[in-house]
Amino acid sequence: MYYGGIEAGGTKFVCAISDENGKIIDRVQIPTTIPEETMGQVFDFFQQFELKAIGIGTFGPIEINKKSPSYGNITETPKTPWKNYPFVKAIEERFQVPVGFNTDVNAAALGEAALGAAKGLDSCLYITVGTGIGAGAVVNGQLLQGLSHPEMGHVIVRRHADDTYEGKCPYHKDCLEGLAAGPAIEARWGENGLALAERTEVWEMQAYYIAQALVQYIVILSPKKIILGGGVMKQKQLFPLIHNYVKTLLNDYVPYPELSEKIDEYIVSPGLGDNAGITGSLLLGKLALEEKAANGLTARG
Amino acid sequence: MYYGGIEAGGTKFVCAISDENGKIIDRVQIPTTIPEETMGQVFDFFQQFELKAIGIGTFGPIEINKKSPSYGNITETPKTPWKNYPFVKAIEERFQVPVGFNTDVNAAALGEAALGAAKGLDSCLYITVGTGIGAGAVVNGQLLQGLSHPEMGHVIVRRHADDTYEGKCPYHKDCLEGLAAGPAIEARWGENGLALAERTEVWEMQAYYIAQALVQYIVILSPKKIILGGGVMKQKQLFPLIHNYVKTLLNDYVPYPELSEKIDEYIVSPGLGDNAGITGSLLLGKLALEEKAANGLTARG
Repeated sequence: MYYGGIEAGGTKFVCAISDENGKIIDRVQIPTTIPEETMGQVFDFFQQFELKAIGIGTFGPIEINKKSPSYGNITETPKTPWKNYPFVKAIEERFQVPVGFNTDVNAAALGEAALGAAKGLDSCLYITVGTGIGAGAVVNGQLLQGLSHPEMGHVIVRRHADDTYEGKCPYHKDCLEGLAAGPAIEARWGENGLALAERTEVWEMQAYYIAQALVQYIVILSPKKIILGGGVMKQKQLFPLIHNYVKTLLNDYVPYPELSEKIDEYIVSPGLGDNAGITGSLLLGKLALEEKAANGLTARG
Repeated sequence: MYYGGIEAGGTKFVCAISDENGKIIDRVQIPTTIPEETMGQVFDFFQQFELKAIGIGTFGPIEINKKSPSYGNITETPKTPWKNYPFVKAIEERFQVPVGFNTDVNAAALGEAALGAAKGLDSCLYITVGTGIGAGAVVNGQLLQGLSHPEMGHVIVRRHADDTYEGKCPYHKDCLEGLAAGPAIEARWGENGLALAERTEVWEMQAYYIAQALVQYIVILSPKKIILGGGVMKQKQLFPLIHNYVKTLLNDYVPYPELSEKIDEYIVSPGLGDNAGITGSLLLGKLALEEKAANGLTARG
């Protein structure tokens, strides 16, 4: 008996099977097209295995409030064919197992807290900087969730003095995502990030924006570890620049070594590399099974 | 048998006694001077009662990490006589009961979630805007805590176009607290808030800053209710201005009625009025007792 996991992204789905300890046994990659097509391949993959539970970490926004009639759906999304897609219902009906459901970034935070850079900690923040910017968090050992899931990519930042680019966010123009996600970098500088690797002014500005966002996350959430993933963060020269800006902005206000001399151990790359999301998705399945067992006990008790 | 609570503020301590349900039976106010003097009066008050537990909600910064050797202490503070004061140890040694310990704003958030404006919700944010700006939060039914307690008053905001005041925060100059706490209002406009009640430009600017901070809190924490307390928020004309700015800034990005047409039920005054902090402090005592009982069971099990 295995766990199944789905990391649902805008360009591809990663599906995987793990054992009890989260070790990945088999995996497949499926292009994200329309639900009928993509989900058909997802079903084909999983039906090869006997599964105890399936976890989904997906692009959003999604409805994660279990009391809502649209729980388990993708809600608003520019990826039109997926709008209002009942993700949890589709998987439950097909496989008749408990289904865990959360954002891709919350899943990645869970994966990193369980088996990655934040292993052993009851608190961490995972941020992806790529086509968009999103973040998930573990707080007191649980996934962060309230009215909705966080939308941390849309924090307000101060503009860099040399930045005349208006910003790309369709809702807020120059929020963090509007100024610092991959498409904004390309629109501002006229080339994509890979071609700009040697231009120091690009990464100075990028670090300035990301560091401001991290300061907001730190004073609001006080995570025990911050993990920066996503395509843009493959530019490793960003890390020391971000470390310096965060230290300067905080100015020793919170006197913890993690926020000063040990900051390079505090703001880090994913311990699981590109597997943070799928690992967390598999864990979401395991949590769904445990929750069902606990509810069963309560009902019997 | 009763619960004791201490709301420790920079100018006064409120001490109270409650029954099992959080109903306040007796209370006293003690000026904050030096620990020997203030705590002497605190001891005198509590020794009149038979107590099961005592909760402390205090000004900070404080050490709330139970694994730290300085757990239970006030740490850095401009109130020099209280620097490194071992608050929990002093109360434990004197009364030999379980002691709960957290920030005044986390206590207020707990009080409002249990018995106030966020009653019945497992998530809320409490912000005080007064001599300083601080906030506490309940997330998934638990007090928000990570590396340290939050320091949300120090979020970064964009400057208002008409604001030439440099900011008063000794660490960050023009963070939220530096631009929008009571002393900043007085320094910018030359009079204290009460005397400025009729000047609309004062409250427009104030709402602009507070609304930006709320947007940061919303996209990062997604609280189910936001409660604004403290002296500055007695200027009730601020509420509609803040509601409008928050709506404008979010621009329907998170499509919840709480963040658009129902925003006046979402961002509200404390349900417990000035009693949020002391009510939460009493509950911290109750939680400390329950935690001790649970640990005892585990140890026996």
